[in-house]
Amino acid sequence: MSAYKVSLRELRFFLWELFEADRRFLGAGPYSVHDRAYFDDLLVRARDFALELGRSYQAADLEGCQLLDDGQVRIPSHFHALWARFRDEWSNTLFGTEHGLPPILTQMIYEMFMGANPSFMTYGGFTRPAVKLLQMHGTPLQKRFIAPLESYRWDACFCATEPQAGTDLTAVALRAEPLDGDVYAISGEKIYISAGMHELTENTLYFVLGRIDTASPDSFSLSCLVVPRYWPDDETGELEPNHVECIGLPRKMGLKGCANTHLKFGAGKDGQKTRGWLLGGRRNVGLLQLMPLMNQARMSTGMFGVGVASSAYLHAVEYAAKRMQGRPIERASNTSAARVAIIEHADVQRMLLDMKSRVDGCRGLLGKLAATATHASILEHTPGADAADIEKHRKLQLLLTPVCKAFISDQAWRICETAIQVHGGLGYTDASPVEQNARDVKILSIWEGTNYIQAQDLVRDKLGFGRNSRLMRYYREELDAFLDTQNASGTDTDLRPYFDQLRRAADLIEAALDHIAAEVQDGHTHRSSQFYTRFLEMFGLVTSAWVLLESATIAARRLADTDVENDPAEAAFYRGKLKSARYYFANVLPLVEQHERAIASIGHAACSVSREELAQVE
Amino acid sequence: MSAYKVSLRELRFFLWELFEADRRFLGAGPYSVHDRAYFDDLLVRARDFALELGRSYQAADLEGCQLLDDGQVRIPSHFHALWARFRDEWSNTLFGTEHGLPPILTQMIYEMFMGANPSFMTYGGFTRPAVKLLQMHGTPLQKRFIAPLESYRWDACFCATEPQAGTDLTAVALRAEPLDGDVYAISGEKIYISAGMHELTENTLYFVLGRIDTASPDSFSLSCLVVPRYWPDDETGELEPNHVECIGLPRKMGLKGCANTHLKFGAGKDGQKTRGWLLGGRRNVGLLQLMPLMNQARMSTGMFGVGVASSAYLHAVEYAAKRMQGRPIERASNTSAARVAIIEHADVQRMLLDMKSRVDGCRGLLGKLAATATHASILEHTPGADAADIEKHRKLQLLLTPVCKAFISDQAWRICETAIQVHGGLGYTDASPVEQNARDVKILSIWEGTNYIQAQDLVRDKLGFGRNSRLMRYYREELDAFLDTQNASGTDTDLRPYFDQLRRAADLIEAALDHIAAEVQDGHTHRSSQFYTRFLEMFGLVTSAWVLLESATIAARRLADTDVENDPAEAAFYRGKLKSARYYFANVLPLVEQHERAIASIGHAACSVSREELAQVE
Repeated sequence: MSAYKVSLRELRFFLWELFEADRRFLGAGPYSVHDRAYFDDLLVRARDFALELGRSYQAADLEGCQLLDDGQVRIPSHFHALWARFRDEWSNTLFGTEHGLPPILTQMIYEMFMGANPSFMTYGGFTRPAVKLLQMHGTPLQKRFIAPLESYRWDACFCATEPQAGTDLTAVALRAEPLDGDVYAISGEKIYISAGMHELTENTLYFVLGRIDTASPDSFSLSCLVVPRYWPDDETGELEPNHVECIGLPRKMGLKGCANTHLKFGAGKDGQKTRGWLLGGRRNVGLLQLMPLMNQARMSTGMFGVGVASSAYLHAVEYAAKRMQGRPIERASNTSAARVAIIEHADVQRMLLDMKSRVDGCRGLLGKLAATATHASILEHTPGADAADIEKHRKLQLLLTPVCKAFISDQAWRICETAIQVHGGLGYTDASPVEQNARDVKILSIWEGTNYIQAQDLVRDKLGFGRNSRLMRYYREELDAFLDTQNASGTDTDLRPYFDQLRRAADLIEAALDHIAAEVQDGHTHRSSQFYTRFLEMFGLVTSAWVLLESATIAARRLADTDVENDPAEAAFYRGKLKSARYYFANVLPLVEQHERAIASIGHAACSVSREELAQVE
Repeated sequence: MSAYKVSLRELRFFLWELFEADRRFLGAGPYSVHDRAYFDDLLVRARDFALELGRSYQAADLEGCQLLDDGQVRIPSHFHALWARFRDEWSNTLFGTEHGLPPILTQMIYEMFMGANPSFMTYGGFTRPAVKLLQMHGTPLQKRFIAPLESYRWDACFCATEPQAGTDLTAVALRAEPLDGDVYAISGEKIYISAGMHELTENTLYFVLGRIDTASPDSFSLSCLVVPRYWPDDETGELEPNHVECIGLPRKMGLKGCANTHLKFGAGKDGQKTRGWLLGGRRNVGLLQLMPLMNQARMSTGMFGVGVASSAYLHAVEYAAKRMQGRPIERASNTSAARVAIIEHADVQRMLLDMKSRVDGCRGLLGKLAATATHASILEHTPGADAADIEKHRKLQLLLTPVCKAFISDQAWRICETAIQVHGGLGYTDASPVEQNARDVKILSIWEGTNYIQAQDLVRDKLGFGRNSRLMRYYREELDAFLDTQNASGTDTDLRPYFDQLRRAADLIEAALDHIAAEVQDGHTHRSSQFYTRFLEMFGLVTSAWVLLESATIAARRLADTDVENDPAEAAFYRGKLKSARYYFANVLPLVEQHERAIASIGHAACSVSREELAQVE
């Protein structure tokens, strides 16, 4: 039995109806190799592999990872056979075309794989970014590692965090001392390195943030070192130990199949050194090199979240439809009334609609990001494309990235929590995978920059505390284009009020940003930062609502079609889209107003507090 | 190292300042045996034992429970020694006085014990209700079991749930067939029985809901059978097997030290029967007998929630105060600026205040319930007490019980989640107990009646869909008495706006109830029930705010005292109370308005949805 559930109908709606990926993306630029039929087949193939991955989801959680006495790390036993299949069946698909797949397609595939077995997917999880890093920055020698990475014979890992340097990377202390040319001796420790040691591949390349210049230890001048677990002999290519050790494997709340390693570099006895190459032979530009990849990791966090949450949601629907319990509230005391499936109870419907609308909203939010990236990428490959248009799409991509990371990770947690609740007592046990779903997604609000860091990135770095009005304008241009088109084309009258509500909600984002800008201008940056989390959530809510309303307008149109009318399953599917939007606009989106009101009165709502005021523990 | 943290200063504030337990409760009625000094000592003693309990909190989670081949259940090894201490040091304190301790004091003790090791506290967790049941309903023979229960030589368990009968107890199928007098042969299965089998005590008494009359299998006519694990010989008292078997032990998300048993009654080979006594010799009144005890269990759920959440909060404060990371946002790019503890960051302060105010609010909400019960109990023991006054307090107790159960369990989950977030990556590992805190409290929204059932109980059974205006009036009388007194006595002007805000928020509860009443009157009960969860939350939010404002007014008064002014720790403590209230009123309480608006537009916001509309899984 697979612990994973997915609805391909949903993914196809998303791709072909909502984002019109065939019309917009498949005809043009670097992605004209394949047509829609190819991708429909690919989705089926990916779904089948995802179901396979889901079969060892719970077993891997139970088995976990162990650090053995000889320093080896034992990962869940099922992962070895799965890895062979992943490598043989998917490396070519994922890397076989020059520019890869269109991001919006990759999103679908990774959503399924990560949703089905996120622990497994941490292995090889840095391969794509690593390949990009080497393509962009690698020296000719370093570029030789692209091939073994692309074929998944080698793995890659990103190593940033140290015990004293988590969110604050300027505190990184790992040392790199010049040996010969761009070869350095590496010494130091890194923690929380996902999939940091395993035997799935013959080698692992660690992309390690470290310090060559230690004169100004607090500066941002970090370098990126490429450190192999085994050093390939220059002549023979034979792999020799490079003295990287796993010295700890903390027990985690979830994601237990992912070896979360504490690594020590330069651990060789008798002074044997750990060697690494300076990426591109360039010192002190590590963060600059890696920053674009962090955005990739943030998007991946969103895919992981949507994938797991969507599966938890589908489990809840299935359970609610078959679990008989109680009678309708109007006939609760009539013991001769028939019992009903709990899906008949209004509060269970509330929970399911809440989950559905959030899953739909998050997938769509991520889709907006992927579609923007796809669009930009096509423009970049189109001779004579408008530079301003490219700029706009790249900026929108940057704007949406922190929103996706933080908002989706928070929503995924809520969705999984609700899935547990729908299951009742069963949901608290491993008779259903949903409790593991919740434990697994909890990491998402923490890793790749905590959610507050995303909010700060959005407000400060992306929107310049409101000074960078261009990004906000780009966003509104896109949103308003949707709002206007619909108004012009005479939308279903039932949906009309939602257009107004969405416009007002988007206005509130701008109002909130103005308030923050004024606060910062008045020197109250610190206290204003207590509200960035709310501000980011406003963005997530509005963008989700936007996608849900787009989906609803499509659904309304399709429902007017007699073919759909005569197909009960299809008609139900589209009615579901209408209800998802309706639920969200009435029950979830209004939260935006509360956020805006709090932000409008920061002076009143902000609270500073000290250790002593918070608690006295005797 | 104990995984538990508690602030006795907080508990003393709560008892002696906020609830004035000495003035109101210790002088009078059945509780005049002990004075404040005794209880202060008792708190210290309870705190010390709680810290001891906390030492095996994480080990018990790791070890869990196992069903052995011989049918025995192995529980965490540390629990045996702890149990001996609990039995020897606490049974007398908890049962030694005729009427027990005042509920508001028991609340404090159980908050600490359950907060420190909730799994451990499930053993013997039904002892107090069982003693009460036997006192109230037992036959003379059955009353003989009170002594071994009170001395914790025997344990007691409540057995209601069956695979097909969870929320819907009318579906209970366990059979009881008359054998001789009030002895019955019991056959059937029960699931999710907490602490259902162990060797801590020489015997366990199961209080089993079953069916004697099977003619109308759907009726509410259930009986309560008292079924011992070992049958005491009538003459010798020797214990013989009674053929109760544990046939399953599901793996759970948390609370892993609690043996969650699947029990089979009547499992003897060769037709050996499981025997039990009909409680009080009365058929078909099982639910009536047990109902008052369910209220007790709901209150316990609240104590468990507050205890664990409070400890998680205190861990977060401690970690935030010592974890150095990053620089103040205004000097973030100035790498020569000193790093600060994360407690200096505004968003971390937001998270800590959010947790603090919710912990304070939940503890106070529970305190209102316990104080009401204490008050009622004193009145009942006071000759000539006003019957209407007793009635009022007993009704208020009933009103607040479902609110406590559901609201606190939801809040505890949020608080633990935030505690994880404050800890960053560390919070996701067992280097801190907070991830276990979250896993442990997740059961609270499910057991003892899911949170929706609590909301339905509140709206339908307690408030009669708004027809029972008396309960609402009782609540408002108490709240208004606080609001009026404060207005009259010239409260701190800074707090004045909060009084108005609280009054308005309470008005919104009544408005929401009116909307629900109108919906029900118009025949829309079903759709109205989609909003009971929100309605219950309004009650929880307003009552929390009420307690926080009471605390703040006390704090404002104390801060005007020169003794306090000159005591930095005390002054900080009271400033913390002011800030907790201020944060809550500005940032949390406004949610009440959103709930009311949704309820005001039920016709618009309610959404019914079908299986087919929700999802299509291929």
